[in-house]
Amino acid sequence: MRYLLSEDQMPTAWYNVGPALPEPLQPQLHPATREPVGPDDLAPLFPMALIAQEVSADPWIDIPGEVLDILRLWRPTPLVRAERLERALGTTARIYYKDESVSPAGSHKPNTAVPQAFYNKMEGSKRLATETGAGQWGSALAFACRQYDLECKVYMVRASYDQKPYRRILMEAWGGEVVPSPVDDPESPGSLGLAISDAVRDAVTREDTHYALGSVLNHVLLHQTVIGLEAKEQLALAGEARPDVVIGSCGGGSNLGGIALPFVSDADVRLVAVEPSSCPTLTEGTFEYDFGDAAGMTPLMPMYTLGHAFVPPSIHAGGLRYHGDSPIISSLVKTGRMEAVAYPQGKTFEAAVQFANTEGKIPAPETGHAIRAVIDEALAAKEAGEERVILFNYSGHGFLDLSAYDDYLHGRLIDA
Amino acid sequence: MRYLLSEDQMPTAWYNVGPALPEPLQPQLHPATREPVGPDDLAPLFPMALIAQEVSADPWIDIPGEVLDILRLWRPTPLVRAERLERALGTTARIYYKDESVSPAGSHKPNTAVPQAFYNKMEGSKRLATETGAGQWGSALAFACRQYDLECKVYMVRASYDQKPYRRILMEAWGGEVVPSPVDDPESPGSLGLAISDAVRDAVTREDTHYALGSVLNHVLLHQTVIGLEAKEQLALAGEARPDVVIGSCGGGSNLGGIALPFVSDADVRLVAVEPSSCPTLTEGTFEYDFGDAAGMTPLMPMYTLGHAFVPPSIHAGGLRYHGDSPIISSLVKTGRMEAVAYPQGKTFEAAVQFANTEGKIPAPETGHAIRAVIDEALAAKEAGEERVILFNYSGHGFLDLSAYDDYLHGRLIDA
Repeated sequence: MRYLLSEDQMPTAWYNVGPALPEPLQPQLHPATREPVGPDDLAPLFPMALIAQEVSADPWIDIPGEVLDILRLWRPTPLVRAERLERALGTTARIYYKDESVSPAGSHKPNTAVPQAFYNKMEGSKRLATETGAGQWGSALAFACRQYDLECKVYMVRASYDQKPYRRILMEAWGGEVVPSPVDDPESPGSLGLAISDAVRDAVTREDTHYALGSVLNHVLLHQTVIGLEAKEQLALAGEARPDVVIGSCGGGSNLGGIALPFVSDADVRLVAVEPSSCPTLTEGTFEYDFGDAAGMTPLMPMYTLGHAFVPPSIHAGGLRYHGDSPIISSLVKTGRMEAVAYPQGKTFEAAVQFANTEGKIPAPETGHAIRAVIDEALAAKEAGEERVILFNYSGHGFLDLSAYDDYLHGRLIDA
Repeated sequence: MRYLLSEDQMPTAWYNVGPALPEPLQPQLHPATREPVGPDDLAPLFPMALIAQEVSADPWIDIPGEVLDILRLWRPTPLVRAERLERALGTTARIYYKDESVSPAGSHKPNTAVPQAFYNKMEGSKRLATETGAGQWGSALAFACRQYDLECKVYMVRASYDQKPYRRILMEAWGGEVVPSPVDDPESPGSLGLAISDAVRDAVTREDTHYALGSVLNHVLLHQTVIGLEAKEQLALAGEARPDVVIGSCGGGSNLGGIALPFVSDADVRLVAVEPSSCPTLTEGTFEYDFGDAAGMTPLMPMYTLGHAFVPPSIHAGGLRYHGDSPIISSLVKTGRMEAVAYPQGKTFEAAVQFANTEGKIPAPETGHAIRAVIDEALAAKEAGEERVILFNYSGHGFLDLSAYDDYLHGRLIDA
């Protein structure tokens, strides 16, 4: 059963969780002075509107009409009750998923790419630079830039650039320019941290160019809250007073934040982050100030981290391979408001295939992490004989990740 | 602007165009005797329910509840007004598309795969055999078989099997068994006609197995009419009395039939088939009896054909590479009720990229053919200074066809 909203039921404001956090966020620090960063420090990278959102204390921030116009190409997204999965599990739980795979780029990423491109356009940028790992974020930004007639330069981790051409082509189809990173070392396979350094360097050295980040920062999670806000309305349509638990996969934290932040103030709702065992930032990292990139060019952020030099094994869920985590998500975990679990990738693909064989859709490997936790939660509910309402974020489809399924189905998956 | 229907507004009967055709269809003939085929001739291949649908004179045929249950995983599909494309063209036309790319397999094909699997299950089949070219149909049938717990064996044209592994993996993720065709000649690149022969041979030599076809036949087009039936309701929601022209790409004819057949009786509505110049069945073929496959094992069908030995160049729109055409579509073209146009593939990719850059979504190469005709129609309306309501079938997404875009974007496309 699918629960649909009409276009005029789309949220017209983003939810800013800042004022509702159990503890205020610590400030970001300048990488050289270690003093709190001010707007002027960030101005070479971001437009003022986004800098203001990054530190805003307003609980609601209006979504500009020009942004709504583009988001309505695919939003509101469906909320789906996964009845066939429920039956296969024989569970007493009711499972709902928010289908973010229906966007042009196939994931939740355009929810923030569009407003980021918009505010840059409004403040006179001609060009955006960014990094991408497997390509989910880069393709979302290329799509968004094309809508506002901005140039888009994407530094793509070289290993992905060489081995996974499909997302590069997607970016190019939307007019993006894609180069392998690191640009100064053609022998290096690259990493997300190195690619961030390349993109930041591009932005700070060109007057016409700003930088855009696809996760981690407060304004990125803010833009993703349309997911959870719509889900609240749709759960009401389904006759559910509230979810018992909200689940999302977590790399930098944006898809999880998008669905979970609107529920932070609902004390009875459990929030669960799911990460890979091979990059266990929240479950085994340390909460401390660290850089967002490998070269130490970004502000220092208060977050769980495995250290900015950490290079995770090359699992298929490229979007979850990040040494750090969103300060908002980190704060929620640190204060106990959010739980975190980690799974090896074999168990996540097992869950993804079970989902494909019942609900039909092929999930992205990142989304498979959330599904693993959902299935375990539903089985726990069955064990306990409890009704339990589970909501999760179906963050993206797996059409561009089928080689990972090939490895799994033919026993070639490294179960990191 | 998207026009959505709720699940209870989904059609509960298919529309059988047979009684409304300008001329009655000529019968299919037995390949050996050249006498009209009867139910017993077809029984080794198909369940009786589908054989009955193939020759039914009832204008409406109920959709079984068990089929509706699966179709509702993604149906009703959205009808979208392509306002950003309209603006880019500066046209006076209003362009609407029916988005069939939202199905689990990413195209319209599951609309018939599901009922075919269902009727086979009901009549005791344990296993279905089929052919697939690039893999759109094979993946749809693998998905459907998994929902009803049937085995699925897919004979995949060897050239695609070797060069395009992604759809093979998709079929395997849904539990399908995929082998390259022709099975008896590992040196041959194969063709759709040869693969049909392999699948038919499998079905007739195994008691537990039936055959399933993804296009051409009357019952296949029947199952696709949910597309046009929903579109009628949605156009009414949009305040349109009727479309002026309905457009679809045409290989075997199933996606075109799906959107166009419910409009056959509306005399003022133009119907347009769009095919590749390199496989110009309707625009340059002959109307005559011909086999559906290369080996001459299928019944003879009255249709436009380039001859069953015709091997089209290997353009990217694999779904449009078929020597023949649906008898229903052929009849509509022969009697003048439907128009047909042909385009070389370069112009279809130009249109597909324009669509991606305005509406956001990346179309399948097959769908790019329809979009080319839509853009030309919208420009003609602008030229004439006319309002014109254009409806087309967005038959599938291009996420698994990005290598074709790579060729186009980098000047490597053979403009056949």
